[in-house]
Amino acid sequence: MLHLENVNYQKVKMTGGFWKKWQDVVADNTVDAVYEQFDASGRVAALGHTWRTGEPNKPHIFYDSDMAKWIEGAAYTLAYKKNPLLEDQIDALVNLIEDGMSAEGYFNSYYQTVELANRWTVRENHELYCAGHLIEAAVAYYEATGKRKFLELMMRYADLIEEVFTVTKEASFVTPGHEEIELALCKLYKATGEKRYLELAKHFIDERGTKEEPTFHWFNDDKRYAQDQAPVREQESAEGHVVRCGYLFSGAADVANAFEDEALLAAAERIYRNAMDKKMYITGGFGNMKHGEAFGPDYFLPNFEAYTETCASLAFVFLAQRILNMDPDSRFADNMELQLYNGALAGISLDGRSFFYENPLEQKPSDLHFFAASGANNRPASRVRLFSCSCCPPNIMRVIADVGGYFMSTDGKNTVYTHLYGQSRGEVSLDGKKLVLTQTTRYPDQGKVRVKITAKEPVKAVLAFRLPGWCRNPSATACGKKPDRIEKGYACFDREWKSGDEILLDFPMPVRMVEADPRVYADCGKIAILRGPLVYCLEECDNGKSLGDIRIAAAPGFKTRYDPTLLGGVTEIAFRGSRRAGSFEGLYRDYEPARASETFKAVPYYAWNNRGEGEITVWIQK
Amino acid sequence: MLHLENVNYQKVKMTGGFWKKWQDVVADNTVDAVYEQFDASGRVAALGHTWRTGEPNKPHIFYDSDMAKWIEGAAYTLAYKKNPLLEDQIDALVNLIEDGMSAEGYFNSYYQTVELANRWTVRENHELYCAGHLIEAAVAYYEATGKRKFLELMMRYADLIEEVFTVTKEASFVTPGHEEIELALCKLYKATGEKRYLELAKHFIDERGTKEEPTFHWFNDDKRYAQDQAPVREQESAEGHVVRCGYLFSGAADVANAFEDEALLAAAERIYRNAMDKKMYITGGFGNMKHGEAFGPDYFLPNFEAYTETCASLAFVFLAQRILNMDPDSRFADNMELQLYNGALAGISLDGRSFFYENPLEQKPSDLHFFAASGANNRPASRVRLFSCSCCPPNIMRVIADVGGYFMSTDGKNTVYTHLYGQSRGEVSLDGKKLVLTQTTRYPDQGKVRVKITAKEPVKAVLAFRLPGWCRNPSATACGKKPDRIEKGYACFDREWKSGDEILLDFPMPVRMVEADPRVYADCGKIAILRGPLVYCLEECDNGKSLGDIRIAAAPGFKTRYDPTLLGGVTEIAFRGSRRAGSFEGLYRDYEPARASETFKAVPYYAWNNRGEGEITVWIQK
Repeated sequence: MLHLENVNYQKVKMTGGFWKKWQDVVADNTVDAVYEQFDASGRVAALGHTWRTGEPNKPHIFYDSDMAKWIEGAAYTLAYKKNPLLEDQIDALVNLIEDGMSAEGYFNSYYQTVELANRWTVRENHELYCAGHLIEAAVAYYEATGKRKFLELMMRYADLIEEVFTVTKEASFVTPGHEEIELALCKLYKATGEKRYLELAKHFIDERGTKEEPTFHWFNDDKRYAQDQAPVREQESAEGHVVRCGYLFSGAADVANAFEDEALLAAAERIYRNAMDKKMYITGGFGNMKHGEAFGPDYFLPNFEAYTETCASLAFVFLAQRILNMDPDSRFADNMELQLYNGALAGISLDGRSFFYENPLEQKPSDLHFFAASGANNRPASRVRLFSCSCCPPNIMRVIADVGGYFMSTDGKNTVYTHLYGQSRGEVSLDGKKLVLTQTTRYPDQGKVRVKITAKEPVKAVLAFRLPGWCRNPSATACGKKPDRIEKGYACFDREWKSGDEILLDFPMPVRMVEADPRVYADCGKIAILRGPLVYCLEECDNGKSLGDIRIAAAPGFKTRYDPTLLGGVTEIAFRGSRRAGSFEGLYRDYEPARASETFKAVPYYAWNNRGEGEITVWIQK
Repeated sequence: MLHLENVNYQKVKMTGGFWKKWQDVVADNTVDAVYEQFDASGRVAALGHTWRTGEPNKPHIFYDSDMAKWIEGAAYTLAYKKNPLLEDQIDALVNLIEDGMSAEGYFNSYYQTVELANRWTVRENHELYCAGHLIEAAVAYYEATGKRKFLELMMRYADLIEEVFTVTKEASFVTPGHEEIELALCKLYKATGEKRYLELAKHFIDERGTKEEPTFHWFNDDKRYAQDQAPVREQESAEGHVVRCGYLFSGAADVANAFEDEALLAAAERIYRNAMDKKMYITGGFGNMKHGEAFGPDYFLPNFEAYTETCASLAFVFLAQRILNMDPDSRFADNMELQLYNGALAGISLDGRSFFYENPLEQKPSDLHFFAASGANNRPASRVRLFSCSCCPPNIMRVIADVGGYFMSTDGKNTVYTHLYGQSRGEVSLDGKKLVLTQTTRYPDQGKVRVKITAKEPVKAVLAFRLPGWCRNPSATACGKKPDRIEKGYACFDREWKSGDEILLDFPMPVRMVEADPRVYADCGKIAILRGPLVYCLEECDNGKSLGDIRIAAAPGFKTRYDPTLLGGVTEIAFRGSRRAGSFEGLYRDYEPARASETFKAVPYYAWNNRGEGEITVWIQK
C-alpha cells in the first residue's frame, strides 16, 4: 500500500481552459446564487438559532450541512479569487455558529431550536452528518485563510462527539445513520495533527455493521440501506443509499491509509468495482433505484427513471481520490474523471446558478409535467435554483472550486502521480525541493498535453501520468523518451528532472460508440457517443422531438467541430442517421422498414438543458 | 344511435375450443380457488359481520366487492355447469347478507362492523362501489337461478341509496369516489324493470364533475383522479384511475342507450378512442402510471414499469360492449377482443388458480426480488393466489364465465351483430322467431369460421360479422354471396335466413410485426409479434436470459406450429434472429457489430409465466 497525499488545491491552480472557466463561474455566480437561496429559504437564519415555534422556515435536520458545504466551497474560491467581502460573510456565519454552540460544544440548528431534549436519539436525523460537514467547512476555511476560530469550535464539537460516542455512550445509536463524520474527522486530524480524531473516525468505521442499530422501516428494515449489513471490512457490494455508501468508504479509505489497513482498502476497492461493474450509468451516474436514492439491482439501469443524484457522483469522486492515494490504479482515476465531466457536472447550469438533483439519461419534459400535476413525481424538467433537500448545489460548487485538489498525488519524497489533465500549474514539494508541473492543453477538447517541468534544482523522482482508459492508443514521452514502465494504467518516468524538461502526452480522442452489457435491458440495441472523457447526448433543440426514434447509420460519418459560441465552447459531433417515415393512425401500425435519412448533432451531456427545456437522450438506436 | 342489447351469456354457449376450455378451468378450479383464499383471508367471515375490534382479518372497505364478484362469477358458471353444492354455497352467503342488512336496507361489512357511525362520510371508501358489485351479483344470481331473495335485498339497498343521495342528501359527497354503482343500477333496472334505478344511475352521471367534491391529496388534489375534472358529457380524455374511468363510462353508456343521450355516447367514445390512441399498451393494457393506478402521459408506455391492471383491461371490455350496442364500430370490438385475449387473460394462470394484478410487458424476476427486499415495490414475479387488494381474481373469473355475453348484440327485431369468434352456439330471438348461429372454428388458432344458421321458420334479418382489424384481407360470404355492405368494419348480410344457410368467414392470420408510434420511447427500434388476435412474447425458458438483447432478423422466416402439449395447446412462432457476440469487461465496451445468429421461439402473451418464473419481453429489437 502506498501512502500518497492529494496535492492541495492551493498548489494546483487552473490557469485557463475548461476548469478555470468553471471555477470563475462558481466564484462569480454560484457562491452568491446558492447563498441567496439559502438565505431566502431560512437556512442562514436557522444557523443563528432565531427560529421559534410557529414561525415559517422551520429549520430542517440537514440545514447545517447545506450551509457548511457553502462555506467550504466559498473558502476554496478564496484561493483563486481574493474576496474580502466574502470572507466577512463567512466570518459572520462563523460568529453565528460560535454564538449558538452550547457550553459543552454542541451545535445543531435543528435540535437546538426545535427539540433540544432529543439530541442523539434518532439515528436517521443527520446530526453527525451535519457535524461532519461543519468540520469539513472549518478545515477548508482554516486552510484558505489561516483563521482558527471555526476550526477550534469544531474541535470542541468533535471532542464532545468523542465523549458521547466512546465514553458516556449516551446516544441511542452507535454509528451515524448518514455517514460523513468519518471522512471529516480524518480531515480534522490532518489539519490539527490530533490523532484522537483519526481514532474516532476509525471507531465509527469499526463499529458499523457489528451492532443491532435502528433500521429503516420504509426500506423494509433492509440493513443495506445504511450499509449496516456487515462489518465494513467484510462488505461485498455497493448497497443502499448511494451517497452514504460513497461517504462511508471515503472515510474508510482515509482510515485505511492512516492505519495501513489492507482489509479496509480492499473493501473500499471491492465496493467501488462492484458499483462500476454492475450499477453504473455510462455517465458515471449512480443510484439506479429512486426508492432510497439507492443502488438498485445489478444491470437495472432505466434511463428515464435514472436517479443518479449529483451528490452520488461526487461521493464516488471522493472515494476514487482516496483509493488512488493507496493504489494508483487508473480505473479509479478514469472513473473520477468520468464523474467530474459528466455525472457530476451535469448537475449545474453553465451560468452556475441552477442545479439538477437527479441527472436522467433520457427525458421528455411533458411526462414530468404530468407527473408533477398528479403528485407522482416532482423531478423538474430543467435545473432549478433550490431544492427542499438542497445538498447538491453546494456540493458541486465545492468540488469545482477544489478541482485542482483531484489532479495530483504525491508521497512528498520522490513520487508524483498526475490523475487529471487540464490547463494548470501544479506545485509539489519532494523532500523539501519544489517541482512545478505546468500543463498546457486544450483538454478535454483535445487530447494533447504538454507538461513542462520547473525546478530550482534537479529533482530525482518518478513522475507518473494516467493513460486514460477511454484512449485506445495513448502515447507518452518525457524528454523524447518512452516511459520506464506502465503501471496500472500510469506511464511512469523515473529520472532526474530539471527546468525545461517536457513530458508530451497524446491521447487521441476519435468519436467512440459504446454499448452496454446485454443484461441491461434499457440499452440493448443502442450505443452512446463518447469523445475523450465526455459523454454526448442528443437534445431536442438540435434534433427535434422523439429522439428515441433516431437510429445512427451503419457508417455514421462522425464530424467534429469546435464551436466557441455553443454552450460556452464545446466540440459538437454531427452524424448520419435516420428516423421512421410514414404516418400512424392510432398508436400502432404494421412494421414498415422505410426510414428517412438525416444528419443529427450531439453535444456534451454535461451541457444539456442550457438552451431551454426539451427532450434528451444519451443512448441512440444502432 | 342504435339500441342493441347483448345476447345474454345463457344464450351464447361455448361448445368447444378456446373459451370452453377456459370456462371449464374457471368452473372446475377458479371458483373454488378464489373462495378458499377469500375464506382464509377473512372475506367470507367479514360478510357475516362477526368481526370484533382486536381480532385479526379486520374487514377492509372493499371486501364486499370481492365477495360479490365471486358470487357473480360463480352464478355465471351455473349456466354451463350445474352445481347444486355451489348454489347452496351462494345461498348461504345471501343469507349472511340478509342477516346483516339493517332495517333500512343498508349493507356494508366494513362500516357495519368497524365504524357504523361514519357511513356515507368518506367519498373514497368504496361504499357505493361495494353496493354496485353486490347489485351486479344479485342480478346475475337471479338470472342464473330465478331466485329473487338476493335481488330483492339489493332493491331495498338501492332504494336506500336513492333516498340518501337524492332525497335526504345526508351523505358527505354527491357522487361515488369509485364508480361502479352506475352500471350496476342499469343492470338492476333491466332485471326488475324499475325505472327509478335507471334514473338514479343517470343522477350519478349527471352530477359528476359539477360539484365541489372531496379530492385526493396524495394525487395532488388533481380532480382527474376520480374523473371529476368536468361534467361527464364534456370530458375530453381518459384520465385518472383507469378502472374508475372504465366503469364510469360503462355506466354512462348504459344511460346513454336508455335515454338516447347522444352527448353521453359521444363522450364515452371520445374517452375510449383517447385511451386507445394515446395510452394503450399493445397488449391492450391500460394504466401507464403506477401512481394512482392511473392513465399517465400520452405515449408514455414503459414496459417493465407497466401497471396494466387486469381489472383495467376488463373495465374497457365492459365499455366496448356497451358502446357497440349503440355504435357497432369494429374498432371497439377489436379492442374488446384484444383485451380479452391478452391484457385481461394474462391475469390468470392456465390452471385458473393464480393471478396477476399488474401485467408487465417486460420483466426480469431478479429485479422484482430486489425491489421487494427493499420495500421499493411488491409486484410479484409470478402469479399469486391472493392480493391484499384482490379485485382482479374474481373479476377475470366472472368475465370468462360470462364471455358468451360479449359475442353478439341484437335489437331483437331484425339485426344481429357478431363481435367475437369461437366455437359456440348463439341463440337470438327476432320478433319472437328463434335464430341460432352455430360457429365452427379453431379460432384464435385459425382464422376460418363457419357459421351455420338454424331457424324453425325463415327469418328476415341483417346479420353483421366483424371483420377483425388485425386482418389485412378478410373474406366473408353468406350462401356463397358477398356482403351487401361493409359498415364500420362489419360485413352485413341482409336476407331471409333459413336452416342450413352458412356464412363462411376467412380471416387469414399470418404472423405480423407491429411497431409503435415514434413518440413511445420504450418501443422505438422494436417490433411486437402478433398473430390473429394474439400478442406474442419471448420467455426465458424458451430463449435464455437477456431477452432484451435479441434482435429479429431482417428476414425472420416465421414458422408457426400448433403444439397441443404446449401451454394448454398454442401455436408457437419460431423466427430467426441474433444476439450480441463477444465478451464484456465491466458494464461497457466499444461497440462491436458482430452478432450470433439463433432461432427464437415466441408464445402467446396470455400464457406466459406458466412454466416457472423467468424473464419475458413483448417488444423485440428490429
